[in-house]
Amino acid sequence: EPGPVQIVSITEDHKFILDEKKLKEILYHHKAREKKVALVSIAGDFRKGKSFLLDFFLRYLRAKDAKDWMGKENEPLRGFDWRGGAARHTTGMIMWSEPFLMSMPDGEEVAVLLMDTQGTFDSNSTVFVNAFIFALTLLVSSVTVYNIMHNLQEDNLQHLSFFAEYGVLAIDAYQTSPFQQLTFLIRDWQFEYETPYGFAGGETVLSERLIIRPNQHHDLELVRSRLRQCFRKVNCFLMPHPGLKVTNRRDFDGKLEDIEQDFKDQLDKFVPDLFRSDNVNFVKEINGEQITSTQLFEYFRTYCAIFASGDLPSPKAMLEATAEANNLAAKAVSKEFYIRAMEQHCGGDRPYIHPSQLEALHNEVRRQSLEKFRVARKMGGEQLSQTYQQDLDNEISELYGNYKKHNDSKNVFAFSR
Amino acid sequence: EPGPVQIVSITEDHKFILDEKKLKEILYHHKAREKKVALVSIAGDFRKGKSFLLDFFLRYLRAKDAKDWMGKENEPLRGFDWRGGAARHTTGMIMWSEPFLMSMPDGEEVAVLLMDTQGTFDSNSTVFVNAFIFALTLLVSSVTVYNIMHNLQEDNLQHLSFFAEYGVLAIDAYQTSPFQQLTFLIRDWQFEYETPYGFAGGETVLSERLIIRPNQHHDLELVRSRLRQCFRKVNCFLMPHPGLKVTNRRDFDGKLEDIEQDFKDQLDKFVPDLFRSDNVNFVKEINGEQITSTQLFEYFRTYCAIFASGDLPSPKAMLEATAEANNLAAKAVSKEFYIRAMEQHCGGDRPYIHPSQLEALHNEVRRQSLEKFRVARKMGGEQLSQTYQQDLDNEISELYGNYKKHNDSKNVFAFSR
Ligand SMILES: Nc1nc2c(ncn2[C@@H]2O[C@H](COP(=O)(O)OP(=O)(O)O)[C@@H](O)[C@H]2O)c(=O)[nH]1
Ligand SMILES: Nc1nc2c(ncn2[C@@H]2O[C@H](COP(=O)(O)OP(=O)(O)O)[C@@H](O)[C@H]2O)c(=O)[nH]1
Ligand SMILES: [Mg+2]
Ligand SMILES: [Mg+2]
Repeated sequence: EPGPVQIVSITEDHKFILDEKKLKEILYHHKAREKKVALVSIAGDFRKGKSFLLDFFLRYLRAKDAKDWMGKENEPLRGFDWRGGAARHTTGMIMWSEPFLMSMPDGEEVAVLLMDTQGTFDSNSTVFVNAFIFALTLLVSSVTVYNIMHNLQEDNLQHLSFFAEYGVLAIDAYQTSPFQQLTFLIRDWQFEYETPYGFAGGETVLSERLIIRPNQHHDLELVRSRLRQCFRKVNCFLMPHPGLKVTNRRDFDGKLEDIEQDFKDQLDKFVPDLFRSDNVNFVKEINGEQITSTQLFEYFRTYCAIFASGDLPSPKAMLEATAEANNLAAKAVSKEFYIRAMEQHCGGDRPYIHPSQLEALHNEVRRQSLEKFRVARKMGGEQLSQTYQQDLDNEISELYGNYKKHNDSKNVFAFSR
Repeated sequence: EPGPVQIVSITEDHKFILDEKKLKEILYHHKAREKKVALVSIAGDFRKGKSFLLDFFLRYLRAKDAKDWMGKENEPLRGFDWRGGAARHTTGMIMWSEPFLMSMPDGEEVAVLLMDTQGTFDSNSTVFVNAFIFALTLLVSSVTVYNIMHNLQEDNLQHLSFFAEYGVLAIDAYQTSPFQQLTFLIRDWQFEYETPYGFAGGETVLSERLIIRPNQHHDLELVRSRLRQCFRKVNCFLMPHPGLKVTNRRDFDGKLEDIEQDFKDQLDKFVPDLFRSDNVNFVKEINGEQITSTQLFEYFRTYCAIFASGDLPSPKAMLEATAEANNLAAKAVSKEFYIRAMEQHCGGDRPYIHPSQLEALHNEVRRQSLEKFRVARKMGGEQLSQTYQQDLDNEISELYGNYKKHNDSKNVFAFSR
């Protein structure tokens, strides 16, 4: 009996575990082995109908193009687990146990896999976990659906570009378009009277949001240009609200009869398009080569090993990253100040001075340097800045040691005269 | 005729302008002058029903506690401009032109003001503009409603703590509780069957999300502890969906008859509670003192001057801040490496070496140092890291100049022998 399989799990202490055995069972499945592979994933914030939607992908893949793929009116929706409630449900990464086979235009059969991911930004996940799951998803998928609510906002772009960049870092390749297709799926679109549902409306929204203007502010420009470099294809679909029966009722179990017709109409456009066999980005490519299911298994392992290695800088939220940048910048300025001031008084072109005089000089310059650090306005609060100040002080001590030796070397000269 | 007044506007090139004249007209209004003041504001993402809600605040303040304050079933909703459409509408900060008077339990009359703000994260606003508007709102308001959709997510907390910290930076006071009341208003709450609408349900959500656990990951802990330090009171209200007539219809003009009863019932709980005169945080305080309307005018000016001064570190999005931190950290390590290696070969306890030998040494150590910088994994892409590499190279040149002089000073000694 096919079902959802947890291939990546997240531990209590915010580390991840790749279940190689289970992943291998899927990617070495007799239906998939040695076939080219397409991996369609969904990512985005938690509790936003991702798993619910995936179950319609399942129905579509099972029905193999049949007109009535969506199923019967009174059939509960099953497959990937979805449910009501405010707390997160899916954790880590979940793959459907069984590959589906699809014929490409040239007759070749491709193994299609579906993956569900832990939603971002629930209150138990660290920035690392969010970035890791999203980045790994982008790396292994051929098509990633980025599920967002209501509107395509600047913070969605900021998060996406951050996660994508984190993925790029892992493959250490600033090549263009390391990723294939990204599909923004905007749920609960409220402005149909202005911009219609579907891909056409999505294109309108996308082009407004992703435009790079001359003289655009650096903030806005950086996010947009990095996104363009990262993805080969980006599109967008506007989805209507599924109706209050879906969203507000505890006993809703996914029956079509409880879902608004608008939603079902659009689903019937969205899902078949996502699995179009003539989509050049449908089959997974790595370094420009289409890969097989078993090769994908190796890439999964390699990528996970890199994320686990500790070689990558650790992703941080806005406040922490800014606090770090502020403190590092202030520390660099203060250190620079120390060096310049010391050079001025005891540089190579200055005469030998008595060690006690040098110490007095050091004490004064050190005091000023630490004071400079203290008064620099920095985010992150007192406690954090204390640790950087301590680092600064240690580095100043080391520099002082150097100056003492340089000064002593002049003393030898003084003696010899 | 009272109406909305733009007091802060944002220019094309992402700067802000405080309209002192208009602000003065409101804060020196004959009804407000020399009275204690309460400023109730709403902030949050764009296009999420903020202005719509404010119009109910207006109705409540006009009706002065009357049972039927919400108005007639078929009356269009007017006041602060709200409307459908995906693009942002409100820009900058908007204040209602007329103060409302409210009696406190001790009989004193207080001037109540309402403020609407430009939504965060529309695709034209820089991180600075978002942070500035939110931080200034927190600084000048006694009660800030933070309007969010669906759920209280970790990214909401991350943004809030970032904006709050930016505000704290402006007043340069790491005192506890610089801000008064923050009310999370969660719109379109979908899980009423699990956690009920209203303040009670909000409290449940809040306590789950804001809990500080022993051994909690640093990411999660920092955001929570900084938030606790910043606000004197934090509460939360869960609001139902207003119905698809409100959200999906172009011709919806705010008539009560088009709004779901659930929504109206909760509105009738939320609004009166927000304006309770026995709320100790209702009147604006600065440095522990209740202030008057005319004093608030001065604080507005002072805060704006600080934000305009350029003294504060510029707020950056996750990607940019992380890129900056990564590059600064890599640069510091490489510089440290240069100093250590040079000290080892031409420090004060090393003999004089020929200038050409010193130059060869410098060239080699410089090459290694730059290489160290280049291979360090950093976010932000090639172009950005080039500028930091150039800085590093310049600083290395300066250090080399110092070493040349130190070395020369040993040469004098060599000659004198
Ligand atoms: N507002 C809204 N809710 C939805 C939509 N689709 C499903 N839901 C509801 O969202 C809740 C969470 O669904 P689930 O698929 O488990 O979300 P996930 O955490 O993103 O995987 C369920 O109560 C669904 O009924 C949608 O398009 N809009
Ligand atoms: N989903 C949802 N939409 C709302 C709600 N309240 C108002 N709206 C709609 O949201 C849109 C934007 O409203 P507006 O007040 O101008 O949003 P603002 O940009 O946050 O000030 C309008 O079409 C409103 O009808 C709500 O509680 N939930
Ligand atoms: Mg899920
Ligand atoms: Mg508005």
